[in-house]
Amino acid sequence: MPTSLHSPLDMHLHLRDGDMLKRVAPLSAHSFSGALIMPNLVPPIETKEDVQNYKNQILEAIGDEDFIPYMTLFFKPTYSREFLESVRDEITAIKLYPAGITTNSEGGLSGFDVEELRTTLEAMSDLDIPLCIHGETGGFVMDREAEFVPIYEKLATHFPRLKIIMEHITTKESVAALDRFDNLYATITLHHLLITLDDVAGGMLQPHLFCKPIAKRPEDREALLKVALEAHPKVMFGSDSAPHPKEAKECPGCAAGVFTAPIALQTLTELFEKNATPLKNLQKFISENAQDIYRLKPLQKEVILTKEPFVVPDNYEGVVPFSSGTALAYNIHTII
Amino acid sequence: MPTSLHSPLDMHLHLRDGDMLKRVAPLSAHSFSGALIMPNLVPPIETKEDVQNYKNQILEAIGDEDFIPYMTLFFKPTYSREFLESVRDEITAIKLYPAGITTNSEGGLSGFDVEELRTTLEAMSDLDIPLCIHGETGGFVMDREAEFVPIYEKLATHFPRLKIIMEHITTKESVAALDRFDNLYATITLHHLLITLDDVAGGMLQPHLFCKPIAKRPEDREALLKVALEAHPKVMFGSDSAPHPKEAKECPGCAAGVFTAPIALQTLTELFEKNATPLKNLQKFISENAQDIYRLKPLQKEVILTKEPFVVPDNYEGVVPFSSGTALAYNIHTII
Repeated sequence: MPTSLHSPLDMHLHLRDGDMLKRVAPLSAHSFSGALIMPNLVPPIETKEDVQNYKNQILEAIGDEDFIPYMTLFFKPTYSREFLESVRDEITAIKLYPAGITTNSEGGLSGFDVEELRTTLEAMSDLDIPLCIHGETGGFVMDREAEFVPIYEKLATHFPRLKIIMEHITTKESVAALDRFDNLYATITLHHLLITLDDVAGGMLQPHLFCKPIAKRPEDREALLKVALEAHPKVMFGSDSAPHPKEAKECPGCAAGVFTAPIALQTLTELFEKNATPLKNLQKFISENAQDIYRLKPLQKEVILTKEPFVVPDNYEGVVPFSSGTALAYNIHTII
Repeated sequence: MPTSLHSPLDMHLHLRDGDMLKRVAPLSAHSFSGALIMPNLVPPIETKEDVQNYKNQILEAIGDEDFIPYMTLFFKPTYSREFLESVRDEITAIKLYPAGITTNSEGGLSGFDVEELRTTLEAMSDLDIPLCIHGETGGFVMDREAEFVPIYEKLATHFPRLKIIMEHITTKESVAALDRFDNLYATITLHHLLITLDDVAGGMLQPHLFCKPIAKRPEDREALLKVALEAHPKVMFGSDSAPHPKEAKECPGCAAGVFTAPIALQTLTELFEKNATPLKNLQKFISENAQDIYRLKPLQKEVILTKEPFVVPDNYEGVVPFSSGTALAYNIHTII
């Protein structure tokens, strides 16, 4: 029996720019109804004009597909209320990167002093602009996210009306924080539901599974899987699909990022089925929870998947996807 | 003032065979007095004839260099006392690999039942043949070595006259086990004294730092460094230098192994100096402890290092070394 997903949303997506944007944007636009577009370009998206220009580039790249790019700004603690009011209608969220923590985050935030952030975060609270955070400290790679949880908690406490999205969470500590604060939410990627550090570096080293935050321990993956499968209302799918050219992955100094956009819906359908989870939970995880949290009215799109093998291409124009070369159980049959 | 090291020994070395043997053996033979040669070839070294043939290949590859290859057998629980007696004079130790745990270990041991091992291990005890063990379970990559410590302890308890060498230890748990059993010893690599998982996967992913066991946490590195610098009498240098062609490292399914042989003495000298450690401790770590533990009388070789920059080559005939392209503080000046 075919599986039907309605208006799937990817609430954490890297579309890059230039040639890479042209390669990858159509793949997300084909099967998703919309996606929250990350602003970590070089230079980052920081002005109203940046947002408009980038949105136009995306719309041009996707051609005829029905797809809404939900735009974000790169967080700066200097954003004034006036600026945020002026840009409110152009954006869906603001993304905060600690300085230097991942790809193109050099201009990110270097401290979390509440008073220094107050003007901007109170304006965001008043304007109902969610704050998306890449929550990692500069600590040891396996501890970085858990070490960041107290910062999430400090911000959630001091700015109780601010919606804070813990992006691409990878640890049981972040999962546990979800239920301690009304205003903490989270996105979870596909790959962090499936892999641990064992898959990255436990056998041979797999550069195409290397990402930030790095995949953690089995008990972390279990905690993520639990809230995803039960469609915890504060949890949304966000792929963190992050394309790099094959040659930037298979080399010393391999770039961080896993490319999942074109295989995410097929793989999630299989994963939820394998775990005997009702389809309505997948529908919540993939769309409804995000609609509620972000107050979105997505474009209507129905993705019908059938249980027939789909062999994932080795690469999409030089970008190697997750599960490349393997057969998935579900294929996208029709998109209405 | 120049630094002089006497008869340095590398008590854990992979020389491979064929073309790779010809590339790397001269590099170790040049600056080391001798090395314990690992037997994990395809097929593994399992007979007296294998040992003799492999030793001859090594001697041919090193040409005129003064260097003793201390040979090992690949452990099999079926080795009889008669067989071990017949091969005793040809080998220095026997190396045990759990099945499938690292490069070319598919034929390794799949269980540690004391009674099944008794005949072989009692014969080894009687014949004073040390047992070198790659101590990892099949568990989560960051836990594998600590999970193996109870197996070390079981073997040490049941075979109290057997010298057991915990090879290339990477954790504080293994360091702690050293002092709990008279018959447990350890080798430590250069790279595990210098790097943690952060260096492998905390920034960009660095395939040339990927090895088994994988580099662990900062507190593990500290524990290793402490016993190396104090020249703990049960600890020896063993590089685990493990060459792979560049193309087998910079690809999906990157092979495990760090190639340190040609830069080990220079880097150790710098490391001990930086930590204000007496040269006599380095001499113990690099040679005297191994002489005592293995009852070796090494070839006399004096390696004189001077404090002048040595820029590590990008590769040695297609094998990328640790610290490639960077300047080391010490250079090998003369070898007598």
